[in-house]
Amino acid sequence: MLKYISVANSLKEYIEHSNLKQGDRLPNVLTLAEDYNTSKTTIVKALEILKADGLIYQVQGSGNYARLPKRTGYINFQSNLGFTTNLHEENLSSQSVSVTSIAADTELAEQLQCAVGTPIYHVERTRTMDGKILCLENSFFNANLIKYLNQEIAEGSIFKYLTDVLDISIGFSDKFFKVRELTDYEAGKLALTAGQPTLDAHEVFFTNDGIPFDYSSNVYHFENADFYLQTQQK
Amino acid sequence: MLKYISVANSLKEYIEHSNLKQGDRLPNVLTLAEDYNTSKTTIVKALEILKADGLIYQVQGSGNYARLPKRTGYINFQSNLGFTTNLHEENLSSQSVSVTSIAADTELAEQLQCAVGTPIYHVERTRTMDGKILCLENSFFNANLIKYLNQEIAEGSIFKYLTDVLDISIGFSDKFFKVRELTDYEAGKLALTAGQPTLDAHEVFFTNDGIPFDYSSNVYHFENADFYLQTQQK
Repeated sequence: MLKYISVANSLKEYIEHSNLKQGDRLPNVLTLAEDYNTSKTTIVKALEILKADGLIYQVQGSGNYARLPKRTGYINFQSNLGFTTNLHEENLSSQSVSVTSIAADTELAEQLQCAVGTPIYHVERTRTMDGKILCLENSFFNANLIKYLNQEIAEGSIFKYLTDVLDISIGFSDKFFKVRELTDYEAGKLALTAGQPTLDAHEVFFTNDGIPFDYSSNVYHFENADFYLQTQQK
Repeated sequence: MLKYISVANSLKEYIEHSNLKQGDRLPNVLTLAEDYNTSKTTIVKALEILKADGLIYQVQGSGNYARLPKRTGYINFQSNLGFTTNLHEENLSSQSVSVTSIAADTELAEQLQCAVGTPIYHVERTRTMDGKILCLENSFFNANLIKYLNQEIAEGSIFKYLTDVLDISIGFSDKFFKVRELTDYEAGKLALTAGQPTLDAHEVFFTNDGIPFDYSSNVYHFENADFYLQTQQK
């Protein structure tokens, strides 16, 4: 791991576990460089990551300040790392998980930039937290890139498997969403009634090299899923 | 304007108006430095802005590539600059605009980090594009920071007024949202029926110095408002 990313991770832990309030000033760059036994350049690069993650904002000529939105129970809608990193992993689980092998149809081929007929893993599962249903998820993985997937893996965090086992660097994603009424099938999966509202989000995930590997559709339970999103300082 | 920001703006225009497709490679840094008659350092800083804006991704040792999600008719949910910058401004308008002066109650005082009783401008308006209603917006501006606001300004782009006339640097925002059913009053404003679905988004906007100046509530028309959101490469 690059030094400044390791320092950024330490700084994140420090901010999250300290008693900093919104707008509290962080120690200056020189102090941080001494604390972390590293160069000022490394600290500056680490702070850029914290800014991009919405943990701090920078006031020119003044310093770095904490951003701490209330997050408890809210889903970070901006995260490209799945639920697991921003909700309490221990309370998150998957139900009625199925993993099937299919061939890409025209839509999947377009979304995943692959040929029609490419082998695809289709995962359908409901995600729950503390026994509450959050969403019905349908994910499609290009099996030429994600060469192995099974039900046991899909019962846990697929993204953790992709990064830790398959060594895939998740880069970024494009998400499209709207609000609509639930279909009969979705309502059944979410323990709701057809016609009740839902947030319907489609997302394509890319590797760090710009290759799409996962096309996902999440249909959220409107009473159980609240979201937050931070815009970043430029 | 700083040189690299000006170069970033030029590069954005180049990308948006060229025929680049998703995954097309940009000219290399040296070529861009020559084209824009500037240093490689300036180009590198400008490209960092484009990356943060989701217009490019960077592949280590290989170069910079275009990201071009389909955007037509979709609202950029991540933008902290209001609608005007990401929908066609000429087709965007505001209806039934009212501007009133009120005093901050407990909730507004907390959201805007000001004392109870602080003077507040309350703007209520519906936003429409091409004659279609997008949302009902209720915004609350701290009048100690936004010292003047009237109906004529609120009929246009308030954020353009804040930046161009009041010289306020908009820094970042925290947004909280969920899906729910419309109330009678909201349904009337959106030409829908009570009980139909809506995306309900609350957002606090901060200056570049971390001072909250606007607390806004947007209730979206579920049939007319589609959204996109890009996550960024780290």
